[in-house]
Amino acid sequence: MKDIKLVIVGSIGIDSIETPHAKEENILGGSASYACVAASFFSSVGMVGVIGTDFPNSFRKLWNDFEIDLQGLQIEEGETFRWSGKYEENMDNRETISTELNVFENFQPSIPNSYKNVPYLFLGNIHPKLQLDVLNKINSPKFVLIDTMDLWITIAKKELEEVISKSTMLTLNESEAKLFTNKNDVISAAKELLKIGPEYILIKKGANGALLYSKDSIFLLHAYPVEICCDPTGAGDSFAGGLMGFLANYDSIDKKTIREAMVYGTITASFGIEEFSLSKFQKINRNDIDNRFSKFTEMFKL
Amino acid sequence: MKDIKLVIVGSIGIDSIETPHAKEENILGGSASYACVAASFFSSVGMVGVIGTDFPNSFRKLWNDFEIDLQGLQIEEGETFRWSGKYEENMDNRETISTELNVFENFQPSIPNSYKNVPYLFLGNIHPKLQLDVLNKINSPKFVLIDTMDLWITIAKKELEEVISKSTMLTLNESEAKLFTNKNDVISAAKELLKIGPEYILIKKGANGALLYSKDSIFLLHAYPVEICCDPTGAGDSFAGGLMGFLANYDSIDKKTIREAMVYGTITASFGIEEFSLSKFQKINRNDIDNRFSKFTEMFKL
Repeated sequence: MKDIKLVIVGSIGIDSIETPHAKEENILGGSASYACVAASFFSSVGMVGVIGTDFPNSFRKLWNDFEIDLQGLQIEEGETFRWSGKYEENMDNRETISTELNVFENFQPSIPNSYKNVPYLFLGNIHPKLQLDVLNKINSPKFVLIDTMDLWITIAKKELEEVISKSTMLTLNESEAKLFTNKNDVISAAKELLKIGPEYILIKKGANGALLYSKDSIFLLHAYPVEICCDPTGAGDSFAGGLMGFLANYDSIDKKTIREAMVYGTITASFGIEEFSLSKFQKINRNDIDNRFSKFTEMFKL
Repeated sequence: MKDIKLVIVGSIGIDSIETPHAKEENILGGSASYACVAASFFSSVGMVGVIGTDFPNSFRKLWNDFEIDLQGLQIEEGETFRWSGKYEENMDNRETISTELNVFENFQPSIPNSYKNVPYLFLGNIHPKLQLDVLNKINSPKFVLIDTMDLWITIAKKELEEVISKSTMLTLNESEAKLFTNKNDVISAAKELLKIGPEYILIKKGANGALLYSKDSIFLLHAYPVEICCDPTGAGDSFAGGLMGFLANYDSIDKKTIREAMVYGTITASFGIEEFSLSKFQKINRNDIDNRFSKFTEMFKL
């Protein structure tokens, strides 16, 4: 059995998505699913999450095709988490139509013994209590990335701050960073968030790229300028998954590697949004990612 | 008398501006004024525009301090162009409160003989008929940048297309590019605009940077992440002015120089927005620009 270098915990869902141009029902979604598939282009990866007994075999098969380790996957009696949403014309804003927590409601992550010494950990967007629980079960990981959302900032800020303080990098959207800190600009918000304890604040700006803030440096990253944006669902998770997969594989966390990892993350995400769910990832390989990486880095070189 | 390498035509106005944090009345504004001052950090520059007999001496003195050549400045009986606007909380959107064209209404640019062989020309945002008139009076310039706005796209598209077809680079905002082409994404819009005839399309995205599109290359540029944005008025003009000043001084229009010029343009603009009107420019020198340039390029280097 191969050594798992990266563990990802998060949601696994069955999504129904409507965009201005198309509609797809009952497709594979969830932060853990997107992030693991994205990471799998770079590194061995294990998924921690929960599904119901209704979970389609074809979805499991898809994970197997990407060689995702499923020792941490729990199957509970009942239905899988379901989410449905609708995107506005600009594809940046979306509205949640419905959320059914189902088996996700009582999810208690259990960590297989073989994951307990994993060096790279991505705590996808779930309740900070669960993130903390997972983090506490891993023996001094080398690099922990934590994602969150407006809901937890509003209803569970204290717990969220605790788990952030124990993480290496916090990632969140621009609007969430502003909400969290009550600041009007990203730089001031990032500065404030750094005080909680992580070394890096990674602020996602959708089609406008991302910003990495640390004590002694700022890294500004564009999004890859795609012409086709079919479905932006999971873009942030694919970005984080690609980033962590690259770091885990390279096993280095110096400034240069982290910048490169972010570029790989954004390239991975740029493929993901070209089709619904994980469809596009099934049609590309590491070589396609490397080619777009080279093309992209030419676009911001002086 | 020194040789003028760059001529800039545009509006000269007296502005009254309200932001969420402050308010200033009767301050110096206008596209030509912002662009000339920005360009003056890099190159000799001549201004073509019109003012009324009410124009304050202190404003003329300011231009003199920046050594802007005023042979093309016309003084007409009447009041100077006036604009007042109000910014929303995010500082990206603004509302025009009032516009008084005054002497600008019957502006007929006249080009001094000493400008007729100028190699670099910036046609600031005025009626395309006037832009074309100026362009026709210059003997085969080496590089022509043209700016425009939604109003001309709506009411004078044909004339606008004619002057664009004779220019080297078109600059406009993201929303204007989409309006012009009826496309939903910047890349498709840029591709469409290129068909009109210029070699480059420069799409400005405010705090989200800019994108340069040409037949064989895309350049993605961030905005410098300022913490203080006091007044974004004129940022696009300072950007264009800095860019053109750098090109005119360097007198080269290869890909590398154009990219560098864009970075210098964005750095120049980043100073401008830190205070109202041209106040910040009175406090900095080329050295400050170079220092921020170095700091900035570190932020997007892999």
